[in-house]
Amino acid sequence: MAIVTIHEVGLRDGLQIEEQAVPTERKLDWIARLAAAGLRMIQVGSFVNPQKVPQMADTDELFRRLSSTERPPGVVYSGLVLNERGLERGLACGVDYFCMGVSASETHSRKNTGMGIAEATGRIVAMGQAAAAAGKGVQVSVQSAFGCGFEGAVPRGRVLDLVRRFLDAGLTSVSLADTAGHANPAQVDALFGAVRALDERLTMTCHFHDTYGMGLANAYAAWRAGVTSFESAFGGLGGCPFTAVAAGNVCTEDLVHLLSRMGSNVGIDAAAVSEVTKDAAAFFGRPLPGVIHRTGPIPYPAA
Amino acid sequence: MAIVTIHEVGLRDGLQIEEQAVPTERKLDWIARLAAAGLRMIQVGSFVNPQKVPQMADTDELFRRLSSTERPPGVVYSGLVLNERGLERGLACGVDYFCMGVSASETHSRKNTGMGIAEATGRIVAMGQAAAAAGKGVQVSVQSAFGCGFEGAVPRGRVLDLVRRFLDAGLTSVSLADTAGHANPAQVDALFGAVRALDERLTMTCHFHDTYGMGLANAYAAWRAGVTSFESAFGGLGGCPFTAVAAGNVCTEDLVHLLSRMGSNVGIDAAAVSEVTKDAAAFFGRPLPGVIHRTGPIPYPAA
Repeated sequence: MAIVTIHEVGLRDGLQIEEQAVPTERKLDWIARLAAAGLRMIQVGSFVNPQKVPQMADTDELFRRLSSTERPPGVVYSGLVLNERGLERGLACGVDYFCMGVSASETHSRKNTGMGIAEATGRIVAMGQAAAAAGKGVQVSVQSAFGCGFEGAVPRGRVLDLVRRFLDAGLTSVSLADTAGHANPAQVDALFGAVRALDERLTMTCHFHDTYGMGLANAYAAWRAGVTSFESAFGGLGGCPFTAVAAGNVCTEDLVHLLSRMGSNVGIDAAAVSEVTKDAAAFFGRPLPGVIHRTGPIPYPAA
Repeated sequence: MAIVTIHEVGLRDGLQIEEQAVPTERKLDWIARLAAAGLRMIQVGSFVNPQKVPQMADTDELFRRLSSTERPPGVVYSGLVLNERGLERGLACGVDYFCMGVSASETHSRKNTGMGIAEATGRIVAMGQAAAAAGKGVQVSVQSAFGCGFEGAVPRGRVLDLVRRFLDAGLTSVSLADTAGHANPAQVDALFGAVRALDERLTMTCHFHDTYGMGLANAYAAWRAGVTSFESAFGGLGGCPFTAVAAGNVCTEDLVHLLSRMGSNVGIDAAAVSEVTKDAAAFFGRPLPGVIHRTGPIPYPAA
């Protein structure tokens, strides 16, 4: 059975939407505890304009602090970069692994970056190649790959074209992100099947949100389609805290529990991740989505 | 594409755990609205001791009222029976379709019925044959088919033996019920695959609870394994109202939404089911599980 990688993105995709900034020391504590729980890939933050996203203002400092601390064996810290300035900052502060992406929705791309898909793709491909040339790990993603809140359905061909562009540029680690939570499991199965057929060198990652309750079903569909790398957030962070809807990322501890019950080699302690979730729920003063941090895991081994 | 049947069990498996009894008139209103939303199979109640489960005390009256009312085209009303006395009552008040079951867990069987699996199976098989001989529809279920809160793992062979017993008795409509919510999607895939291989006459139904957040993922796994009949409850009713955990049945409107997004021929209006959920949430004075009754469906057709 293939080893499953879970890329913990709660500190970035989870926190960026929160009004209340998490102090640097607490972020470092969460990162240390997530690593101790067995997570081997942890996204620390994004290199965005600190005026625009104050929650991410300490990303450079976090990487410097992590670089000067003894690292748990095998742990990789990733950072999200949106432009060349972010890449420069990331290279300067010790990022191991760069994540960057292009939206498959023209409207989403323009709203998010001020550029259309074609221009954004050219820049992201060049950035990815530069990061790789600097000896760094690189993951490129297709955002809104399963549908878009602005445009609705996103043609599969457009997603496949973007993946081909990445592959042609030698960028073989590709994430398909369901930014809006619009994916359904049959679509996940079909799209990852089509992407996998493009090139056997491809390492596929999936990134789902639980906006319409389909997050774990989609993760299972991806797993069944051969995806072994999953992005998720402890406590299902990432939903808007001002609505009743659990629209955050797929919840790490719930995903770990599901994959573990299926016999996957995950190597992560869902109960230990849940402790970080409980701390975050106390910090934000509200219940967080996800189930396992309330129930604990099923109390006996899977058959 | 096969037509999917959703068997709405909220009025039975959902309500039986609620302290606050729902008045008969309101139940009739919910049933009418669920049928108008497109649900073609609705479980009205169970024939249990009214002293023990006051919430189900009006089951006979509900069936009499429904029998004397014009029925929406194609709608079937089902009732759960636990013993011969219940079957007699059901035959007397006009039940179309009888549901009955045996637990695959010896401990669960004894706690639930006072009988071990072997004795309970003999009685249920005889009841099923009697109901069929009376010209009624019959579904037999294996409860705790995926694991048990008392015993832990349930051997697959024991589930298959029970299904074989049903088949040998000519009872070909079989539901596998995840009473405790312990199923995982890989297990669902494997177990339904094994059951389907027993006999091509079999009509398979699945029944999942969302105790550990895996309900919809399990439903998808069952769908992918060829199951076209699903039991679910509007608003995800059926969890204990005194815990924070959403441990109820898989939520009908969320399941309808998921199946519809995958292009299944469901024929049910998730938004109309959601209106019944909202009414139930107001009646019980607490938020109910499930997502779609808060978000509404994804606002564009699936690709």
